[in-house]
Amino acid sequence: MQGKYRALWLNDDEFLEVIDQTKLPFEYITKVLKTTDEVVLAIKDMTVRGAGVIGSVAAFGIYTACLKKDITYDALHVEAKKIRESRPTAVNLMWAVDKMMELLKNSNDLVNDAKKYAIELNDDEAKESQKIAKFGADIIEDIMKKKDKKSINILTHCNAGWLAVIDEGTALAPIYEAQKRGIDVHVWVDETRPRNQGASLTAWELTQSKVKHTIIADNTGGHLMQAGEVDMVIVGADRVSANGDVANKIGTYLKALAANDNDIPFYVAIPASTFDFDIRDGVKDIPIELRSEDEVKYMRGVDSDGVVREVLVTPKDSPAINYGFDVTPARLVTGLITNKGVCEADFDKIQEKFNS
Amino acid sequence: MQGKYRALWLNDDEFLEVIDQTKLPFEYITKVLKTTDEVVLAIKDMTVRGAGVIGSVAAFGIYTACLKKDITYDALHVEAKKIRESRPTAVNLMWAVDKMMELLKNSNDLVNDAKKYAIELNDDEAKESQKIAKFGADIIEDIMKKKDKKSINILTHCNAGWLAVIDEGTALAPIYEAQKRGIDVHVWVDETRPRNQGASLTAWELTQSKVKHTIIADNTGGHLMQAGEVDMVIVGADRVSANGDVANKIGTYLKALAANDNDIPFYVAIPASTFDFDIRDGVKDIPIELRSEDEVKYMRGVDSDGVVREVLVTPKDSPAINYGFDVTPARLVTGLITNKGVCEADFDKIQEKFNS
Repeated sequence: MQGKYRALWLNDDEFLEVIDQTKLPFEYITKVLKTTDEVVLAIKDMTVRGAGVIGSVAAFGIYTACLKKDITYDALHVEAKKIRESRPTAVNLMWAVDKMMELLKNSNDLVNDAKKYAIELNDDEAKESQKIAKFGADIIEDIMKKKDKKSINILTHCNAGWLAVIDEGTALAPIYEAQKRGIDVHVWVDETRPRNQGASLTAWELTQSKVKHTIIADNTGGHLMQAGEVDMVIVGADRVSANGDVANKIGTYLKALAANDNDIPFYVAIPASTFDFDIRDGVKDIPIELRSEDEVKYMRGVDSDGVVREVLVTPKDSPAINYGFDVTPARLVTGLITNKGVCEADFDKIQEKFNS
Repeated sequence: MQGKYRALWLNDDEFLEVIDQTKLPFEYITKVLKTTDEVVLAIKDMTVRGAGVIGSVAAFGIYTACLKKDITYDALHVEAKKIRESRPTAVNLMWAVDKMMELLKNSNDLVNDAKKYAIELNDDEAKESQKIAKFGADIIEDIMKKKDKKSINILTHCNAGWLAVIDEGTALAPIYEAQKRGIDVHVWVDETRPRNQGASLTAWELTQSKVKHTIIADNTGGHLMQAGEVDMVIVGADRVSANGDVANKIGTYLKALAANDNDIPFYVAIPASTFDFDIRDGVKDIPIELRSEDEVKYMRGVDSDGVVREVLVTPKDSPAINYGFDVTPARLVTGLITNKGVCEADFDKIQEKFNS
């Protein structure tokens, strides 16, 4: 594992090291996490974020817990519980902790076995991301061929790149793969208010990976689509219901509407583990997280002296409301790009491909 | 004329005084404009903004020019030219300057006549705003009756209130009128990136006028509409083509799509002077202003010490692009609320009502 283009790695002293994503894009700082408590805090304070990366950190969190002097498998359960509780709604985190605990059940060498299993889990994750990359890049090539274009403009919302999912992300993975194939790709990066993951994380990631991109206000995508400046949209997702409705960062639905209105392909890139087969009607039944109004009212940036500051951007007494996600109905989704191939956002097709 | 609920007025010393809108919502500061150059600068640096208010300031700008010692009507032409050139694309500004110059042609008392005409022009403007208010409030009452609701939730984008158009604005005028009629009205205020006119100006205006409101990220409207939390949308417009296509602040089109997808009435409130009969296809032919990328990359707010600061919110080297407007196709517009009554966004109906 390496630092470059990964959100986390084992450093030379064999400790877990992560990019502090709360400081991006203003400062590139890494944190070494040497204890369970440090891992838990890093998840809680969003030093690390993104569904996949949280799972990866959790797996190495169990390894980190094993570094505690004279720890036993029984005592490890207490540490595992702490990690599970760091973000109770994160499906990948639960899965990774459970998997690690299962694998370590009969271990006689907790430290070395945990290290081995965590690396394996992450390498497996990276392979799945690579599959999404390849299926997605094939679609990019198809679209270019159909339109007889020498370059492609792709719009994305929020951050679903290598800061979010090992090794190259979900929504951004096909873009990185297209770049490797020599395709001239340019990305429209939605700012993604209120937490600005696009303007901060995605723009930073693409800069590091030398992918051409332009930041736009979330309001701008509709006009660009009308003007023929967008060839396709690729976004990630937090949850996809059995009927193909897509819960993703707030604002995704508006871009899907605009893509549909302008006949632009709208794709969602996800690991197959994102499906929630218990929910049959995503628009009606996927619960939407309500977050702090302060994320709307305050913004963080760097001033002319290079100091990172938080400023109030609204009247002090005006209330704000902050829904974290919205749900894009399946009818607006051209296709789901997964590690198991591309699938229509359709109940029967999803059932057949992923749940049989 | 009064200061409260107006963006400009004549002060006790008979000088033009305006609210400095670049400082809102952080500081309420007014500026006294005593010379043509001060008027020109106030328009250029956006101390005053909003189509109507710029026209009003221009009319009083001619009065201000007349205050110059021993000025003649011939010399006034030079001052008028300076004012016209302060924002060459502002239709209302040109109209107001031309009208004032025409009215003053045979004046023997430039100062007093200019004062009288400027006040008359503004009072006329205020009366037109009041008509928009009444036609719009009637629609609000109709929607409430149809839905059998005791309160109404209205979404608006950008700022088209009394900071933009004398006396109560365009999009916000029906809301102020509804409040006067005792209707329980609540406004969803789109932040309106990148210049944040919603989060700063509209939220501040509604606070001053004691109208219930909640600020939302521009990404949020679609989810609120899906969830049944929006009863209608009212926006203003910068230009409406002969076929009813609506050029307004960037992002308006996305809200119109979401309103259409959820069967929510989408109204555009405008003075009849907003029509551009020379443009037959607004989506194709209304030119879209490209503004500085810095408006996307930097944000202004107040820090914890109360100091107004500008901070960079993106990676320094990532480019951004900043279109000021988009065009909403007429097919997504439920109706145009004007000072001459409500009209469908349809070529023949517009022609019949406004251009015959």
